[in-house]
Amino acid sequence: MIAYRITTGEGIDAIETAKVGEPSPGPGEVLVELRAASLNYRDLMVAKGGYPRNDTRPVIPLSDGAGVVASVGPGVTRWSIGDRVAPNFMRDWISGPITEHAVRSGLGGGVDGVLAERFVMPERSLVAIPDELSFEEAATLPCAALTAWNALRAAGTTAGDTVLTLGTGGVSMFAVQVARALGAVPVITSSSDAKLERARAAGAAHTVNYATTPEWQDEVRAITGGRGVDHVLETGGPGTLERSLASVRVGGTVSLIGVLADGHPPSLVPALLNAVTVRGIYVGSVELFEEMNRAIAANGIKPVIHETVPFDRAIDAYRALESQRHVGKIVIIRGG
Amino acid sequence: MIAYRITTGEGIDAIETAKVGEPSPGPGEVLVELRAASLNYRDLMVAKGGYPRNDTRPVIPLSDGAGVVASVGPGVTRWSIGDRVAPNFMRDWISGPITEHAVRSGLGGGVDGVLAERFVMPERSLVAIPDELSFEEAATLPCAALTAWNALRAAGTTAGDTVLTLGTGGVSMFAVQVARALGAVPVITSSSDAKLERARAAGAAHTVNYATTPEWQDEVRAITGGRGVDHVLETGGPGTLERSLASVRVGGTVSLIGVLADGHPPSLVPALLNAVTVRGIYVGSVELFEEMNRAIAANGIKPVIHETVPFDRAIDAYRALESQRHVGKIVIIRGG
Amino acid sequence: MIAYRITTGEGIDAIETAKVGEPSPGPGEVLVELRAASLNYRDLMVAKGGYPRNDTRPVIPLSDGAGVVASVGPGVTRWSIGDRVAPNFMRDWISGPITEHAVRSGLGGGVDGVLAERFVMPERSLVAIPDELSFEEAATLPCAALTAWNALRAAGTTAGDTVLTLGTGGVSMFAVQVARALGAVPVITSSSDAKLERARAAGAAHTVNYATTPEWQDEVRAITGGRGVDHVLETGGPGTLERSLASVRVGGTVSLIGVLADGHPPSLVPALLNAVTVRGIYVGSVELFEEMNRAIAANGIKPVIHETVPFDRAIDAYRALESQRHVGKIVIIRGG
Amino acid sequence: MIAYRITTGEGIDAIETAKVGEPSPGPGEVLVELRAASLNYRDLMVAKGGYPRNDTRPVIPLSDGAGVVASVGPGVTRWSIGDRVAPNFMRDWISGPITEHAVRSGLGGGVDGVLAERFVMPERSLVAIPDELSFEEAATLPCAALTAWNALRAAGTTAGDTVLTLGTGGVSMFAVQVARALGAVPVITSSSDAKLERARAAGAAHTVNYATTPEWQDEVRAITGGRGVDHVLETGGPGTLERSLASVRVGGTVSLIGVLADGHPPSLVPALLNAVTVRGIYVGSVELFEEMNRAIAANGIKPVIHETVPFDRAIDAYRALESQRHVGKIVIIRGG
Repeated sequence: MIAYRITTGEGIDAIETAKVGEPSPGPGEVLVELRAASLNYRDLMVAKGGYPRNDTRPVIPLSDGAGVVASVGPGVTRWSIGDRVAPNFMRDWISGPITEHAVRSGLGGGVDGVLAERFVMPERSLVAIPDELSFEEAATLPCAALTAWNALRAAGTTAGDTVLTLGTGGVSMFAVQVARALGAVPVITSSSDAKLERARAAGAAHTVNYATTPEWQDEVRAITGGRGVDHVLETGGPGTLERSLASVRVGGTVSLIGVLADGHPPSLVPALLNAVTVRGIYVGSVELFEEMNRAIAANGIKPVIHETVPFDRAIDAYRALESQRHVGKIVIIRGG
Repeated sequence: MIAYRITTGEGIDAIETAKVGEPSPGPGEVLVELRAASLNYRDLMVAKGGYPRNDTRPVIPLSDGAGVVASVGPGVTRWSIGDRVAPNFMRDWISGPITEHAVRSGLGGGVDGVLAERFVMPERSLVAIPDELSFEEAATLPCAALTAWNALRAAGTTAGDTVLTLGTGGVSMFAVQVARALGAVPVITSSSDAKLERARAAGAAHTVNYATTPEWQDEVRAITGGRGVDHVLETGGPGTLERSLASVRVGGTVSLIGVLADGHPPSLVPALLNAVTVRGIYVGSVELFEEMNRAIAANGIKPVIHETVPFDRAIDAYRALESQRHVGKIVIIRGG
Repeated sequence: MIAYRITTGEGIDAIETAKVGEPSPGPGEVLVELRAASLNYRDLMVAKGGYPRNDTRPVIPLSDGAGVVASVGPGVTRWSIGDRVAPNFMRDWISGPITEHAVRSGLGGGVDGVLAERFVMPERSLVAIPDELSFEEAATLPCAALTAWNALRAAGTTAGDTVLTLGTGGVSMFAVQVARALGAVPVITSSSDAKLERARAAGAAHTVNYATTPEWQDEVRAITGGRGVDHVLETGGPGTLERSLASVRVGGTVSLIGVLADGHPPSLVPALLNAVTVRGIYVGSVELFEEMNRAIAANGIKPVIHETVPFDRAIDAYRALESQRHVGKIVIIRGG
Repeated sequence: MIAYRITTGEGIDAIETAKVGEPSPGPGEVLVELRAASLNYRDLMVAKGGYPRNDTRPVIPLSDGAGVVASVGPGVTRWSIGDRVAPNFMRDWISGPITEHAVRSGLGGGVDGVLAERFVMPERSLVAIPDELSFEEAATLPCAALTAWNALRAAGTTAGDTVLTLGTGGVSMFAVQVARALGAVPVITSSSDAKLERARAAGAAHTVNYATTPEWQDEVRAITGGRGVDHVLETGGPGTLERSLASVRVGGTVSLIGVLADGHPPSLVPALLNAVTVRGIYVGSVELFEEMNRAIAANGIKPVIHETVPFDRAIDAYRALESQRHVGKIVIIRGG
């Protein structure tokens, strides 16, 4: 079969396709036929190399996929041929708190991912995808959506809370949809009014253009009557954390998501003086994934897809992601 | 001014009106002009006498009211004349966990309630009522709505959960609306298809007629694909708890609300063998009330009012409640 | 090898030994050489037959054992030959919340248990036993100790809380030790002053003889200055739950453990009026077991063993348990 | 009566004594006769001026005091003359989550503190001090001890957890004692072996000299077998947060306490990649204070006092604090 592979850390150009042996499910394992995959910013970082604890070489890239059970190994009880499934981002994080071992099992980085015609997973690492979602839609869930869900659950977000998300990337857009489903009030920032318009269509109650309102934290506070938001999903790059800390209420939560790698880290004195919780969010467990899928099904949530690219042109999907022009997810599809 | 009073525990007939001295707010207190009040089943029990720790005599009845700040005592900083407010059911439960002292401060039972032209409250015992609600609507919140909110919050109800409520009384109907706002799936029972129709209009996803389906717990389990519901708000009378325990999933929650006084209590062995949490819910704190009001405002929730009765015919409201023909709340109104 | 077996539900007399084929670990499985096992009241119930969802026949009895890894199957990474391990009571409850599937995987009831010379377990169902404990001591942990730990954790017990345990059985005695380790104040009841003396030696701060003080709930309340205890571990038989509900403070917790099967269930109205949480506790997960073992090691907790019986006279251990004369655990040992 | 006062932000030299009018308790208020007070690093910062939201001028300094009820205003029900009490650090944080209003009510900064012969407090802002503690000991609790308690509770610290504290200041030393009472394993750092010896006497299980072991985070990880500690109480100055983040386990907690104002803030990428929670801790509520006092009483905890200074030489206490030579608390005493 055909699989994509990263063998060196030289970026997108070095990702190659290869003919590899047909994988075969061992005891307790399942063979999944890929139907769709999606990309996350992490996939660019993995391709460049050096992603902490997720830098195995060679590795089949991408964490996010959805497909159909093609065969099952001995002893498998949870799945049958034809079931529609998606693997969890961290293969070995089934339930309960995150562990070091789980972190090292990230698909498409620590262990082989999904960008292949077929892939093998332990049966407990798969979830059923909601009936209401297509494979394309389901393929967007494992990383971005589950990160947003984990952040909202860990912060205890409930009806009436105000939730701020930064930018219109995959995590942010999904957070807007889920926050709305939870009865919360989503606020979103972007430098593009067109993108904000799309965020509003997805459920944002308030939008702030940070290009035209550089001191956007003041605007955010004004939206909450001066109190500050209950929760910020901090997906920004350098410089936003300081403003996020200025946007959140006393006793509120900032979920650390995404990059943050560059730039000058801000002082945490405001976090101390406002008793703020700053929590690193690193995707989620199979248990959280199943819980999220129930929420998606019950609330008719449809992930926002920016564009689709065929399997044999997957590199184009990487390029599209790099260009940062998208709202929502970039999806790779395979004919069934 | 005119106030209603219970001086003996002989039931509705013994509730009387009296001319009483004009109340005056002391330091830290607020005088509220009543605009609307509502009834709960507890008010019938209080009238009959013997309600545990809430049986002061004489007492001005009713916990649920909404009105306008008429004057403020020395040192009051939270309120101004004209503010629209409602008092908390337990006058002295401001925040944090419930206490014995809080239980004894139930309005219209442990201490004077709201069924008077004006009443005095400590400033910290009042909440602002949502702008979107009329006084009639706001007057339904303190007991039934806050009980439902507390139960759903204590059970950790979130999007995708299935929530079962029993009957179409005030707590159940509000629970349906809030569960829907939280992204959960409300299931409701009644012996009347007409009432179930109204529950569906309020947001119920599934309805079960327990008159035509006496083994309704089987139907409830079937709705959840056999798994059982995540949460039951047990507002029933004798005999329902056993079926509620049979309706809830392994590890789920049953919130004990309301009467339960009569009939044969069921065995709790199923609770043990299914690791179920059975939690007594006794209204809520000012903090929870404020939290709920944010949820109501953000989600456009409108309490379901069955009928309104003028202040000088408040006894008719008690009679209407006793007849059990209502869906939602019975409200007493005063011309403003 | 030799294994005990229950083939009919006729009680202790029907438990037999059999020569069975040597078990062999499959992929991801581990073969454990038994060194010690212990008994719980549940084992008597299983022997009689009809234990809900744990009534497989034939079945190798007992959930509680400790031993040494004898060999490992393909793909096992967590264990090596010679490691000292114990299996979890529910073989398939690894982490996170309890599930129906987990409940059905109870050792020595739902699936084969440990009362055999050797047994096979999935690698993830085993925990390392604390270095400080002998095999005899470690063999007491899976059911009684983990139940106590789960109850104390679920109730949020912390330093300064008062914790009531009923009787001097395995769960109660371990709860006394753990409550003390958590900085809480253990209170225990028994009908025997001699047993209470042993409980005091194990860490009980207060003891109540329910034979000489039949209204023991009043004594318990008096110990807490009238406030009521924060948490009751309700391990009693018929009739105690009513007194437990009268012993617990407003907003406190009663953990349902053990039998409760007989007698007239009490009214739950007090639970409602005092906002009490009554929570069914059904042993615990591997994750909780590992957490408990860290607590045991850090605090030098030594399980209280009543007596030991050799492997080939295991039936005597059943008889000893039935006689109810023990304080702490009855342990079966195998020469190594 | 005599009161100390800060009228300008010029540091210790500008603190003065003044004859002021005798305070008198209004409705719901209590007059307390001071017996002992203690200092925290915050008191030095307040004296210098500019402490955020706690910079009222003139202000009576110090948050930490203990004394005797001298008289009560109208309507007071919780206290009687002669009761031994301490005020809460934040006068208006009674229960539940922290609020902006609570933050502004810090004694000796936002509102008048305790460094006077007598002071007035709302009755709900006082707690009873444990019978087992002297006034000197009780006077150390409001800021440092409650901060440590809040941090340990918010992090969910339980038996078997490993807790790291930095330095031997008041918060650290109390955290060691409380962590031990909770059954956890305290690890502490200092640059002085003599101070570490005193920490060991107070309950530290492991000590690390950061002067002789500059890469102390490696030593801390080694103590935990490489896993990392469950919880760090980050009380350090510039530069320690980076090492604290390197000391904590995947999914663990760092409590931000104290200064952190100077130096280069570290990158939070490790917090993200290890799913760490970094939580600002700002003292605690009356509810937490009462909970802590139960824990202190149940476990016989005695605060570590470094030295005592008489009331009329309170400035010497500031000087002693500034010198950083203490282990534990510096206490000001008044003859009774």
